[in-house]
Amino acid sequence: MQQERTEIASLGEFGLINHLTKNNETVQAGTILSVGDDAAVIDHFGRQTVISTDMLLEGIHFDLMYTPLRHLGYKAVAVNLSDIYAMYAEPTHITLSIGISNRFSVEAIDEFYDGVYTACEKYNVDLIGGDTSTSLKGFIISITAVGEVKPGKFVTRSGAKVNDLICVSGNLGAAYMGLQILEREKKIFLESPGVQPDLGNKAYIVGRILKPEPRADIVNWLMEHEIMPTSMIDISDGLSSELLHICTQSEVGCILYEEKIPIHNETKDMAREFNMDPLTCALSGGEDYELLFTVKQEDYEKIARNDQISVVGYITDKAEGVNLLTKQGNKHILKAQGWNAFSQQKKS
Amino acid sequence: MQQERTEIASLGEFGLINHLTKNNETVQAGTILSVGDDAAVIDHFGRQTVISTDMLLEGIHFDLMYTPLRHLGYKAVAVNLSDIYAMYAEPTHITLSIGISNRFSVEAIDEFYDGVYTACEKYNVDLIGGDTSTSLKGFIISITAVGEVKPGKFVTRSGAKVNDLICVSGNLGAAYMGLQILEREKKIFLESPGVQPDLGNKAYIVGRILKPEPRADIVNWLMEHEIMPTSMIDISDGLSSELLHICTQSEVGCILYEEKIPIHNETKDMAREFNMDPLTCALSGGEDYELLFTVKQEDYEKIARNDQISVVGYITDKAEGVNLLTKQGNKHILKAQGWNAFSQQKKS
Repeated sequence: MQQERTEIASLGEFGLINHLTKNNETVQAGTILSVGDDAAVIDHFGRQTVISTDMLLEGIHFDLMYTPLRHLGYKAVAVNLSDIYAMYAEPTHITLSIGISNRFSVEAIDEFYDGVYTACEKYNVDLIGGDTSTSLKGFIISITAVGEVKPGKFVTRSGAKVNDLICVSGNLGAAYMGLQILEREKKIFLESPGVQPDLGNKAYIVGRILKPEPRADIVNWLMEHEIMPTSMIDISDGLSSELLHICTQSEVGCILYEEKIPIHNETKDMAREFNMDPLTCALSGGEDYELLFTVKQEDYEKIARNDQISVVGYITDKAEGVNLLTKQGNKHILKAQGWNAFSQQKKS
Repeated sequence: MQQERTEIASLGEFGLINHLTKNNETVQAGTILSVGDDAAVIDHFGRQTVISTDMLLEGIHFDLMYTPLRHLGYKAVAVNLSDIYAMYAEPTHITLSIGISNRFSVEAIDEFYDGVYTACEKYNVDLIGGDTSTSLKGFIISITAVGEVKPGKFVTRSGAKVNDLICVSGNLGAAYMGLQILEREKKIFLESPGVQPDLGNKAYIVGRILKPEPRADIVNWLMEHEIMPTSMIDISDGLSSELLHICTQSEVGCILYEEKIPIHNETKDMAREFNMDPLTCALSGGEDYELLFTVKQEDYEKIARNDQISVVGYITDKAEGVNLLTKQGNKHILKAQGWNAFSQQKKS
């Protein structure tokens, strides 16, 4: 009998996760939310625990040629905390496992941990455990973050309702443009090692890729103003991809207004320098770690008071599909790949 | 200024962990136990949560040439649950992150997950989240296990008291001998690919390395019989190393009786075939995932009724040191490397 072989690439990341977890049944009474959101939720006698995990691999998720180890440690924690905040929860603890080859010195690992501890301190989180291994190749980081939320007050990806407003925090596409600069400077350096990179006037966008911050401030502000989002997700893969997650899991459609999508001027300038469309960067560029969430229409006036939150569209019936309305008034079906996909779409 | 470079090897694994965590301060009121035990403990309003994490790397922790993926999935879960049981707690949930290169097919990953789900089902644990990444090289597994324990009823490595009895579950050294067989068969196969390995009459010891079981049964038995260990650790690195952890963290010494150390007949036979000392395997061979624990003297009669538990020694004052009493009546200072270290010891 010939053994079947299905290539992982044929399923894609989300397809593979669905495939691997589709028969996963939970038996613990305390399991409130399992695989498929930013984090899982466990009941603990009056409070609920939120738990999320992320793996970062050298050569896949980061390039040590332009990522200072201190920043990497900070970022590894930040992106995990971002998942906890995206549940409308407060992070409290992390565990950290690393795999390191002998090309790293103790001083190098110390720098990495400096970043880890700095992030923990800033976000009031305890590092409570971990594992340290030798790796044959590459630096491997795995973090699990734990948080707390009042019973039933966590926010999933699946609660968006027709007419809810779609909101994003901060601005989008900056981290992606920052990455383009770092990649360009790396190429220049490899060709002419004498040339020192000049990142002076691109500090903002380079900072967005190297040292992202989870939007604790936004979650805290929403809590203070008693705004309970109906759905929420953090933007790690780009606005299109995350909005599709919310629409799919909430079984709704949406209209997203191009002109409402917040893009920083520095991002726009750099996009033009690279001959790219700033909108593409915002829709498909990942790693901004902003929050995408939906709120009820009645919360509009409160939301409008926070200049760090943009209302970028609204939720529609599922039958309407997931749409982008361009500045020119054209409606495009939104795909996870973002702008690249538009060329294949008929206008509707 | 010249940058200092300290080699990681100069600190060793435990030295590195100490170095990296020595300034780690916890701020969360809920943090009851942090870095430095089998798992951490978090308070959750009436119950306590135990959390532990482990990373397994291809080429370091496992060799896919003789490790079926289904067994690997099972073992990856088992070794994490073992840490939770070693806290005298019940595992409830795990998260699983994997990094896989495109040399793996979906069918191969399915096999791995089959093993993961089988272990979860057997131990009544829910898989509630994870992360799936591409890796440039090698299979990477990171699991975080979560468990529950009644407030204050967790057992650490630091509670052993003078005169407590030292106990181990099951038998030791079997996994190490199983590994020797697999390594030998791999070598034979690489030299003569036509020769099929015959593991028929070594099923027990090969099973110990490929498919270890966490000793849930022992922990449950202790709970049922109301025996509260004073300290506990799971044996992943060998009896010497784990006993030194308990003695160091409890600030005590001990006498370990060579003749009391439980070694399976199959382990003894194979050790002789390999010209090794069975005692060395028991002291320094890792991966048995048995439990090492201490109990009060008054619990002796209860403990003696369980033929899966051996009393192997007793705790002494710290000044006495950590000693092995041989069958010949000689006293040796125990070192983490086990038998190899003896040659350098003077008799006392």
